[in-house]
Amino acid sequence: MPTYQAPLRDYQFVLNELLNIYERTELKGFDEIDVELADAILQGVADFSTEIMLPLNSSGDVEGCKLVDGNVIAPKGFKEAYQQYVDNGWGTLTCDPEYGGQGLPEAIGVFATEMKTATNMAFAMYPGLTHGAYAAIHAHGSDALKQKYLEKLVTGEWTGTMNLTESHAGTDLALLRTKAIEAGEGQYAISGEKIFISSGDHDLAENIAHLVLARLPDAPAGVKGISLFVVPKFLINEDGSLGDANTLCATGLEHKMGIHGNSTCVMNFDGALGELVGDPHQGLRAMFTMMNQARLGVGVQGLGVSEIAYQNALAYAKDRIQGRGLSGVKAPEMAADPILVHGDVRRMLMSQKSFNEGARAMIGQQALWLDEAERHSDPEKAKMANKLAALFTPIVKGFVTDRGFNACVDAQQVFGGHGYIHEWGMEQFVRDIRISMLYEGTNGVQALDLVGRKILSDKAATLMSWSALVKQLIEENMSNDAMKPYLAGLMDASKDLEKSTQYVAMNAPKNSDILGAASMPYMQILGITALAWMWTRTASIALAALETDTGDREFYQGKLKTAQFYMGYWAVQTRSLRKQIESSSEQLTELDEADF
Amino acid sequence: MPTYQAPLRDYQFVLNELLNIYERTELKGFDEIDVELADAILQGVADFSTEIMLPLNSSGDVEGCKLVDGNVIAPKGFKEAYQQYVDNGWGTLTCDPEYGGQGLPEAIGVFATEMKTATNMAFAMYPGLTHGAYAAIHAHGSDALKQKYLEKLVTGEWTGTMNLTESHAGTDLALLRTKAIEAGEGQYAISGEKIFISSGDHDLAENIAHLVLARLPDAPAGVKGISLFVVPKFLINEDGSLGDANTLCATGLEHKMGIHGNSTCVMNFDGALGELVGDPHQGLRAMFTMMNQARLGVGVQGLGVSEIAYQNALAYAKDRIQGRGLSGVKAPEMAADPILVHGDVRRMLMSQKSFNEGARAMIGQQALWLDEAERHSDPEKAKMANKLAALFTPIVKGFVTDRGFNACVDAQQVFGGHGYIHEWGMEQFVRDIRISMLYEGTNGVQALDLVGRKILSDKAATLMSWSALVKQLIEENMSNDAMKPYLAGLMDASKDLEKSTQYVAMNAPKNSDILGAASMPYMQILGITALAWMWTRTASIALAALETDTGDREFYQGKLKTAQFYMGYWAVQTRSLRKQIESSSEQLTELDEADF
Repeated sequence: MPTYQAPLRDYQFVLNELLNIYERTELKGFDEIDVELADAILQGVADFSTEIMLPLNSSGDVEGCKLVDGNVIAPKGFKEAYQQYVDNGWGTLTCDPEYGGQGLPEAIGVFATEMKTATNMAFAMYPGLTHGAYAAIHAHGSDALKQKYLEKLVTGEWTGTMNLTESHAGTDLALLRTKAIEAGEGQYAISGEKIFISSGDHDLAENIAHLVLARLPDAPAGVKGISLFVVPKFLINEDGSLGDANTLCATGLEHKMGIHGNSTCVMNFDGALGELVGDPHQGLRAMFTMMNQARLGVGVQGLGVSEIAYQNALAYAKDRIQGRGLSGVKAPEMAADPILVHGDVRRMLMSQKSFNEGARAMIGQQALWLDEAERHSDPEKAKMANKLAALFTPIVKGFVTDRGFNACVDAQQVFGGHGYIHEWGMEQFVRDIRISMLYEGTNGVQALDLVGRKILSDKAATLMSWSALVKQLIEENMSNDAMKPYLAGLMDASKDLEKSTQYVAMNAPKNSDILGAASMPYMQILGITALAWMWTRTASIALAALETDTGDREFYQGKLKTAQFYMGYWAVQTRSLRKQIESSSEQLTELDEADF
Repeated sequence: MPTYQAPLRDYQFVLNELLNIYERTELKGFDEIDVELADAILQGVADFSTEIMLPLNSSGDVEGCKLVDGNVIAPKGFKEAYQQYVDNGWGTLTCDPEYGGQGLPEAIGVFATEMKTATNMAFAMYPGLTHGAYAAIHAHGSDALKQKYLEKLVTGEWTGTMNLTESHAGTDLALLRTKAIEAGEGQYAISGEKIFISSGDHDLAENIAHLVLARLPDAPAGVKGISLFVVPKFLINEDGSLGDANTLCATGLEHKMGIHGNSTCVMNFDGALGELVGDPHQGLRAMFTMMNQARLGVGVQGLGVSEIAYQNALAYAKDRIQGRGLSGVKAPEMAADPILVHGDVRRMLMSQKSFNEGARAMIGQQALWLDEAERHSDPEKAKMANKLAALFTPIVKGFVTDRGFNACVDAQQVFGGHGYIHEWGMEQFVRDIRISMLYEGTNGVQALDLVGRKILSDKAATLMSWSALVKQLIEENMSNDAMKPYLAGLMDASKDLEKSTQYVAMNAPKNSDILGAASMPYMQILGITALAWMWTRTASIALAALETDTGDREFYQGKLKTAQFYMGYWAVQTRSLRKQIESSSEQLTELDEADF
């Protein structure tokens, strides 16, 4: 069975040293947090994740969810664990204090999410979806709706879902058919079938708030005719107590590759009563305002599962003895050397470690941008932070889940044949995390969003603002010889990014299909460069710390070594990705259907 | 449910046009085959695979194998399908005519294996392991043993297994503990526990010949003290009829990520009677003589599953409508365009297609080298072919399964969220093929075998012989302008291969751990270059065919387009891989345990 050590020291490094969140008093509410508070909260989540959630991860996978007489039963132990989760208030961390939340920064909350996802991704999705429903109502709901739903969603007494997909309408929500008709007293009757509804039904909470996209009778065609509704599983009386069951139910459970502990439902709405969230026909816009945060959440899954997979692969590599080191016997007292002596095992582990720590830093930065966007006292700076977060949303979702999946496959590979066997837990990590590349917009959709909406439509303005930050970092560190190796890696990757951006900017106006063809290698280049930026900042901090007489020398030396590996193994990947863009994307747009 | 179209036209191309096997009359037995015979056989296997094996693939995965009262029951339908397989003689294709085989070239047999693996990998493993046991006894057994076992293994009336792994001894067989003691009359009593035994027990055949590695009492320590035994499930009477059950049984079934239809057993041998295959203490050598062929078989799995995954992803991309093309509406009569219009979907599909067809050509070449090694009338040429096959064994096993797995993940990605759902079949392909990177030597072991044994110990002599073939191809085509784009890709990749070889050759003598650290990127570079070689040969043939008035212009034009894509998308990957070797492998060898 896998074990887990929450990376609390790394959280401290990112929050305190890399992002300096405790000095950001210009952000509303940041003056109320300090190191001790953040440490205590992260330690609490670490304990809950490790002691309560992790032990249910494998059993939840084996048992899965059951649909009995129209009601879904979560795996054994989930109900009790969830009750503890609610009692401890773990769902309230980043929520609005007006509705019982603790108002903590996203930069802290995101690492709570990492630990929950690492230890039990399927379980963590129940509160994860609830947070999405909370955010939708919080951002777009009327005061009455907020009063009705938010406190219960914040505590977790009720959970939430997002009902977007229909069997014929996934990426393309313009095609959706679910209907809503007025039913008097501000109510609407919703009818239609939704698929792939995570946490769609279960026995963990007394009520479920379904956020549902549907069309009103007078709706214009396409995405401009979609409205957002909140439809409760049990109708809510005026006094807040629960009334009759609404006319909706789970009609099936999807048979999936992984996340078996989460109930992925086919949902049927048969004139179910609900209320409008936001304005009519503005449903898609309402969903999109939460996109940056929701997609960050999925990216965090990529990181969390990759982290626990890495930790267990490392433990196995230290423990498993097999063969001898090429340069001689390393453990003469044993019948064989630990497999950590083998170069290729080291390669896989360092690839994972340097990715995970780089992605963690980037995810912290992204969360802080989201905090700045919402809380900065200077509206211009808030606006800039929002743009940067929007630019890097496809990176934290698409790039981090792509490479996080690969890292899990590598971690499984360290186990040899044992990695294929369920009891070691590694194959479950691979199966579970695979969904993160598909939902909340496939990674191809992320890549297109990046190249099309975030780069080209923006005339690369936000990218240039970010590139200015990169250049500034390079200039600030140029005179420091010890920084040279890291700067060289960052500069090489930046050059490939620049050239690739030029290629897209020059060719897309003539042939817009090139955007799609170039999008995935482009997203990888920006992702690799972004992590090189974080590793350069990390190296700079680590070098400074080692110059003072700090007590934690091993930690900083480790950061330098990992940064060096990142530059030598990861940053060098941009060159070939750029060549792919330059030499294959045009051809892709010219192929006929018969050429495939 | 997935569908399958056997790539018969591509088999014809590889066998007839690329490898010219029908003109290779200097190879013993090749004079007995012709196009019609090969076509008929491949068509027969195609029909059997598509009609009988494919329908059992998903149901076999869902149902899995069961262990009931010490006997394993294969999934529903497997027994009947296997009987048909035996009745049709599909197991006899490449076997020795002396024992009832058809003596066909490996170059044909390998594509029969591809179709079987594509349609039902778990099922195909039963005859696959049988062939391994046949080959071991055929190569190393006494005449008496051959008489006793081979005919039954050739027909498939009996099946076979390979019992190597123990829980503490996987890669490192020196550690194995299973014991053999003399029991009189040429018999040995075998005792010990083996794990991960594919097809270890089942109800498909009346007897099972277990090939078992064990130690004799006087055995030297380590790998030089391992002997190979054949241990039947049921003892065999002098007249060939079956006697009592031997004292061995499956004590458990492994719970695996995939290949659920194959019985992966924990086997217990409790003084079970068996006979020595080959000389005492020479068991590992006996196993290794079959390595090139066995590892080719695993590589073919990487290709086969990748092919069926590609075919279904392509069909889905043509059928699924979602969104509109970036350059405008492509299918105005429909509510949305087929997703094949999207550049990133095209990228994934062409990546799969160009890999599959390149790998198929390379696998054909490898099989032909194995045929030459065994059948060439000139012993020098046979020896050279054997060396080339040994050099490329890690490529067809390690590289093809690595990239075949990635191709299956891409194919799954084309399906969006539906790719995660069992009923579409794509997630099964990913789960099934994952094992091919782990068994028959992990891909890390392949990479080390390549860099250490096949390159460094050989002083790169065989690599240089092969490079001479590449140079010759380049020179022969230099004057043809139409060949320039393909030659450029091959030359760039070759240069990175050359530089990487130099790096390893220069640094390994000082620091042998570098071999392991550099091995995986090195294997990828050689694999990519090998496929670039096949694609260049393919392009040359296609151009020549298009100059004549052949009727199949679309096929050859398709080959040229795919070759072009391979060069622009795949061949360009070597540059970054070379940089990884040069800039990260030394550091990997220097890290302390605490640095991970």
